[in-house]
Amino acid sequence: MNADQLTDGLQTPFLLIDKNKLRTNVHRLQSRIENLGAVLRPHLKTVRSIEATALILPELSAPATVSTLAEAEALANAGYDNLLYAVGISTNKLARVAELLRRGINLHILLDSLEQADAVADYGLAHGVTFSAFIEIDCDGHRGGLPESSPQVINIARRLSDPGARFQGLLTHAGESYSCTTDECIRAAARQECDALRKTAALLQREGIDCPVLSVGSTPTAHFAEDLTGISEVRAGVFSLFDLFMHNVGVCNMDDIAVSIVATVIGHNAQRNTLFIDAGWMALSRDRGTASQKCDYLYGQVCDMSGTVLAGVKVSSANQEHGVVVLPADSPYLLADFPIGSRLRILPNHACATTAMHLQYQAIDEQEGTREVWTRITGW
Amino acid sequence: MNADQLTDGLQTPFLLIDKNKLRTNVHRLQSRIENLGAVLRPHLKTVRSIEATALILPELSAPATVSTLAEAEALANAGYDNLLYAVGISTNKLARVAELLRRGINLHILLDSLEQADAVADYGLAHGVTFSAFIEIDCDGHRGGLPESSPQVINIARRLSDPGARFQGLLTHAGESYSCTTDECIRAAARQECDALRKTAALLQREGIDCPVLSVGSTPTAHFAEDLTGISEVRAGVFSLFDLFMHNVGVCNMDDIAVSIVATVIGHNAQRNTLFIDAGWMALSRDRGTASQKCDYLYGQVCDMSGTVLAGVKVSSANQEHGVVVLPADSPYLLADFPIGSRLRILPNHACATTAMHLQYQAIDEQEGTREVWTRITGW
Repeated sequence: MNADQLTDGLQTPFLLIDKNKLRTNVHRLQSRIENLGAVLRPHLKTVRSIEATALILPELSAPATVSTLAEAEALANAGYDNLLYAVGISTNKLARVAELLRRGINLHILLDSLEQADAVADYGLAHGVTFSAFIEIDCDGHRGGLPESSPQVINIARRLSDPGARFQGLLTHAGESYSCTTDECIRAAARQECDALRKTAALLQREGIDCPVLSVGSTPTAHFAEDLTGISEVRAGVFSLFDLFMHNVGVCNMDDIAVSIVATVIGHNAQRNTLFIDAGWMALSRDRGTASQKCDYLYGQVCDMSGTVLAGVKVSSANQEHGVVVLPADSPYLLADFPIGSRLRILPNHACATTAMHLQYQAIDEQEGTREVWTRITGW
Repeated sequence: MNADQLTDGLQTPFLLIDKNKLRTNVHRLQSRIENLGAVLRPHLKTVRSIEATALILPELSAPATVSTLAEAEALANAGYDNLLYAVGISTNKLARVAELLRRGINLHILLDSLEQADAVADYGLAHGVTFSAFIEIDCDGHRGGLPESSPQVINIARRLSDPGARFQGLLTHAGESYSCTTDECIRAAARQECDALRKTAALLQREGIDCPVLSVGSTPTAHFAEDLTGISEVRAGVFSLFDLFMHNVGVCNMDDIAVSIVATVIGHNAQRNTLFIDAGWMALSRDRGTASQKCDYLYGQVCDMSGTVLAGVKVSSANQEHGVVVLPADSPYLLADFPIGSRLRILPNHACATTAMHLQYQAIDEQEGTREVWTRITGW
């Protein structure tokens, strides 16, 4: 059965996930990273769903990354116990982290300042828990973290050796790889990402500080890294679903994108050669990440219900619950090809942002002819 | 008690609503529209919360607008019975509309084509219900609707007089008023909005078709319309909370904005004079509507916890769970003014998009010293 049949009668708009594409995407990267001698620690922020996690992680004890403590708590409740919360920790969140540690969850936290290390070690000592912390290194000026080989890393690592804390290792994220447009650019970003951690770990070793884990990652660098010598684990998130942004970066084919929004045509404007669909930014998200890329997909690429890309047909603009599709003057498609009441699939600019707009996902397996409803983990 | 005290200990990020500002915003527009001889039909898509609706609608039978059937169903369950679903109807949604009609809810739908009118009247006749439908008129080329005085309006109105349907009136939305930057521009948009309906209603009357209701509305035009003669009702949505976009349009003062996101400082980068907060686009939304306006607020205007605007301090960029605040070179503020662990309030670009990222809102009344948790109506 195909997607159209498997979702017949559902209220639009809704989010559709192709389980087979998701599985293929995950298998591809898992094999790649294992062949390079490291372990994949998938970032679950993209799907935020226990049902999806079962397809992404090979076993309950496999390493995973989360972006919120809400995800960590939901995953812990489902039996997963090797989690990294990859956002700089704040003191007001330590009680929840401590509670997960007491439940036996191997939850690692992230920090990049002595103030944070002090707060963490003090809280751990006072409350009888030992926080496992990574120090964030800034490999490309993209976001947080200390510069590579910063002497401050030594001070923080030493502070994390005090009772109440444990120094787990170094973490970096090659966020600037998202702006690459060539394979060589991504390969260079991957080298830079790994080198930043290797050099900083060497500095620590010269000071007699053991650095058990080196954690790198971004979806582009994970797919293009050539040498992971000395690197323990690789994080990547959007790779499980992929999206138009990653297609523009050159990390996936259009056909690898495992997520789409299904919408119904609700109107035509013949004068403006425009059709309206019932998926606006509430269903598609406000993400316009492709605006700065080589191909701007506006609010998303339109496909038919079989998933076939309709060349040049994009969601031109979006109101809260209206998507506006202006057919280009040279389009081979006519308004009559999109009758009122017919359904379309929209590939999103950014999978993480689009899943965030939905509390449930329709997950289909066209080979098995099955459909499941997956539930999103919400909140913080 | 102030906002800081009333929200002490809450996990960040969270969405904060100032009930007194909301009340003032609602009262201001309600009085204005009543003084002009029309009725306000507030659009509840901005807040999507039963608790907020109690402050926005004066009584259960007061007219309201919704953007999804999920809102209509939740409001019906709460006792509200005069609802307009202001998105073009599709056949696959008629069963849910019919169910609400059978429950005694006065739910109006919207359409702009003979195909839709046929589907509606046929379904109504076949299922023993009478759908009350507005015909959408396009007053400014912004979105859906038929051109003013289009002869097709006559055909649709006649079709809606058949068993199974009832022609309720004409509806338009001056969406282009959002791009105004002067009061006179908005006043002209308001005149155009009303004139489009008056002229089309006159056309219908010449054909012997009664047009009971003329429904206009947008937050800018609702605040600047000078003459509502012949207009029955005015719709507006974002006016209840307001946002930076509407401030740029000139419809509200910064101090009228009733919604903000509370975030914690989680890191500093001294080299780049940058601080990081735990509110990224997941909490703030991806909306960048102010990018094309006279003042670009990037991902939001930073305030202290009392709500005082910190001039020139904006959320420069956003990752999923990180907000990046780059302090300008000429800023009177230093990184030391934002210690790690301290909290800030962020005014959003677009209230409708930011509330959409939260399942709960913290609603405070600083005068009474109370805080309530409001629940968002979700889905479609």
